[in-house]
Amino acid sequence: MLFNKITLLNENFEIERDMYVGVKDDRIAYIGKEKPEGDFGEEYDGKNRLLMPGFYNAHAHSPMSLMRGYGENLVLQDWLTTKIFPFEDQLDSNAVYWGTLLCMAESLKYGIVSSSDMYYFIPDMVNAVMDSGAKSNISRSIANPMGIPYDELPSIEEAKESLRYHGYGNGRILIDTSLHAEYTNNVETATRLAEFTKEAGAIMHVHCSETKLEHDECKSRHGKTPAQFYNDCGLFDGPALAAHCVWCEEEDLIIFREKGVSVATNPMSNLKLASGICDVTEMQKMGINVALGTDSVSSNNNLNFFEEMKVMATLAKVKKMDPTVITPKEALMMATLNGAKAQGRADCGCIALGNKADMIVLRTDTPNMHPVHNMLNNLVYSASSGDISMTIVDGKVLYKDGEYTTIDIEKTIFEAEVATEKILKKL
Amino acid sequence: MLFNKITLLNENFEIERDMYVGVKDDRIAYIGKEKPEGDFGEEYDGKNRLLMPGFYNAHAHSPMSLMRGYGENLVLQDWLTTKIFPFEDQLDSNAVYWGTLLCMAESLKYGIVSSSDMYYFIPDMVNAVMDSGAKSNISRSIANPMGIPYDELPSIEEAKESLRYHGYGNGRILIDTSLHAEYTNNVETATRLAEFTKEAGAIMHVHCSETKLEHDECKSRHGKTPAQFYNDCGLFDGPALAAHCVWCEEEDLIIFREKGVSVATNPMSNLKLASGICDVTEMQKMGINVALGTDSVSSNNNLNFFEEMKVMATLAKVKKMDPTVITPKEALMMATLNGAKAQGRADCGCIALGNKADMIVLRTDTPNMHPVHNMLNNLVYSASSGDISMTIVDGKVLYKDGEYTTIDIEKTIFEAEVATEKILKKL
Repeated sequence: MLFNKITLLNENFEIERDMYVGVKDDRIAYIGKEKPEGDFGEEYDGKNRLLMPGFYNAHAHSPMSLMRGYGENLVLQDWLTTKIFPFEDQLDSNAVYWGTLLCMAESLKYGIVSSSDMYYFIPDMVNAVMDSGAKSNISRSIANPMGIPYDELPSIEEAKESLRYHGYGNGRILIDTSLHAEYTNNVETATRLAEFTKEAGAIMHVHCSETKLEHDECKSRHGKTPAQFYNDCGLFDGPALAAHCVWCEEEDLIIFREKGVSVATNPMSNLKLASGICDVTEMQKMGINVALGTDSVSSNNNLNFFEEMKVMATLAKVKKMDPTVITPKEALMMATLNGAKAQGRADCGCIALGNKADMIVLRTDTPNMHPVHNMLNNLVYSASSGDISMTIVDGKVLYKDGEYTTIDIEKTIFEAEVATEKILKKL
Repeated sequence: MLFNKITLLNENFEIERDMYVGVKDDRIAYIGKEKPEGDFGEEYDGKNRLLMPGFYNAHAHSPMSLMRGYGENLVLQDWLTTKIFPFEDQLDSNAVYWGTLLCMAESLKYGIVSSSDMYYFIPDMVNAVMDSGAKSNISRSIANPMGIPYDELPSIEEAKESLRYHGYGNGRILIDTSLHAEYTNNVETATRLAEFTKEAGAIMHVHCSETKLEHDECKSRHGKTPAQFYNDCGLFDGPALAAHCVWCEEEDLIIFREKGVSVATNPMSNLKLASGICDVTEMQKMGINVALGTDSVSSNNNLNFFEEMKVMATLAKVKKMDPTVITPKEALMMATLNGAKAQGRADCGCIALGNKADMIVLRTDTPNMHPVHNMLNNLVYSASSGDISMTIVDGKVLYKDGEYTTIDIEKTIFEAEVATEKILKKL
């Protein structure tokens, strides 16, 4: 494909106008001011359009889409024990497949090209992501609240088996490992999983200090914070991604910096569950790789990434009572490049020659995108998800003006609802 | 017009399915389970569509759309003195007309049917709103920082003259009065404006305790809070609307309740300018009429009202560290009915027989709106502005699937940009 005379958010996250961007197979094959020679296939007029990198969702639980809006306005513990856990107990392969596909449809609508997706029923998640054309770093979440010996944990077996999917779809599927949390695991499980993760060379995806209660209880139990617990168990010895980090302390951030741990901040979910406000400004200042996540839609309750980015950037300002923190460029990088980095996707996250063609085409002929004093400001604070015209993954148009090329949206909604109703009947 | 078998958010803010809703002229003429007799004109299939009241934006400065993204990431005082005030000094009739029309186009895209719009160049604002088909409570903002005698203030003359527009467009235009703020006025101006407002029977629209600095300085100057200052000057003796109220104290809220003052909360602007988080939960509990506003797009930076509603509801939860506060029904009422009340529009704000037909048609066949455990939850937390299919004001379709019936959007964007460039050249 070739975009003619389009406005481009380039690899330095600066705006260039009237650019030609060519894609061959799954990669960016041309970026320039002149129209390139050769055949790039379908041509798209860049008038009133902006080309930017797709969004990398650094923390998701896709199958939980089936629980969207299920049991709202409850305190976390009630919500989990009376609603989420009983529902999850009834999940099966079919439900997870359709729940994940529904989430992939929603992701593509909102410009998300890849997700760090922690859950279970991995084969069904892989199938749905493969069918959708999107990308995902999928991890089998290990929770062992009963303290079963590590070698007897069925979930560990599943985690090991899931590794066979690593690299599927020309690298669209990557398999991470995941310790669900400190409060759902013991030292043995954490330590042994860390060893397995190192052997596999996988990325470790953990929940970390989401709520004050979790943070404080960990300190009572172990005399250390969740981040320190994970670090001492070896979970941060390889590449790692810590989600939430709302209550992390300075020492935790020093660990993240020294061990190169990425943080996935989930501002909307943290607001909605009244967990708190993550101090992304401090993390950025320290040089930590901060990426953006949605968490599941059952605590968000959508995957509107433009909304997520704006809320992250503006919430950071009120957290510091300082409107100058988090520049639009930083916000855009957190939503794209930093997420790709957290997913170990070195050739993704920005529109650069040779990179994978994971891109969003945004309409700019909308009243909310004018005037243009500064396009970066407009992208972060004024753009809406409804302005997304196309979502492209590995050079393939997966979403265009409300239509999907890979997903039968009517059937997906229908099957997801049927699966949901089946589960509700059992409760 | 007649909607056939549509999902309806009814006047009690509950969901009814497969409803027939008929409009004759500018009013709701039929609501029922059976198809009505008689001719209602054009029929719309309600399949995969939801009909809800339009949004009432309780605090706006529409002409400031020309300053969208102009001078971002600055502290408030720098932003105002180096960017906003110099730009505003160069505004003229033409710029205000196109800036307002651009904002009306954006409002309609985002489902806003009516705005409480405080600014100046009132005739041009009226013209733009009239041309757009939308509604507005327009007020000439009085700021008298130099302490000019009240009777010599040109702005007072303009405020008085603007009253002739009251009721224009079959009541679409209402004229409010406005004291800009305590810190830009003295006791004489406030007191005399209060008298004029009472004579005119107008609604008084004020900025109130937006920042801690403003709040504290008022206390230093007058020994009372802005709300107490306004009350003592008589500004709350008639209907009144106080915008922001981020730093209001308990005594202030008691005044609001006793005097029936509505509050316009502007969560996104308050985040972006790092002003703070308004305690809407406390206000709601006390029975104060809390409505929702966007503030200007130069501090927001769009009019995405679904986003605004979600941010308001979730921010309230983190403010109280309690996820149970602000129910979806309360959030929806704040965005609609409470705003209409604050604007003195007794026959607006909900879909009830005989009310003005100010409505949004929302697409529900989108992945983010499924499954439907509870449609109210989905409306507040999962809907996106891009799902808005139609915006209807006084029974007229003004926006439908990206197209406007009253506004030439290409020309409006063009003229707004030309007006902006002209001003920038003078700076």
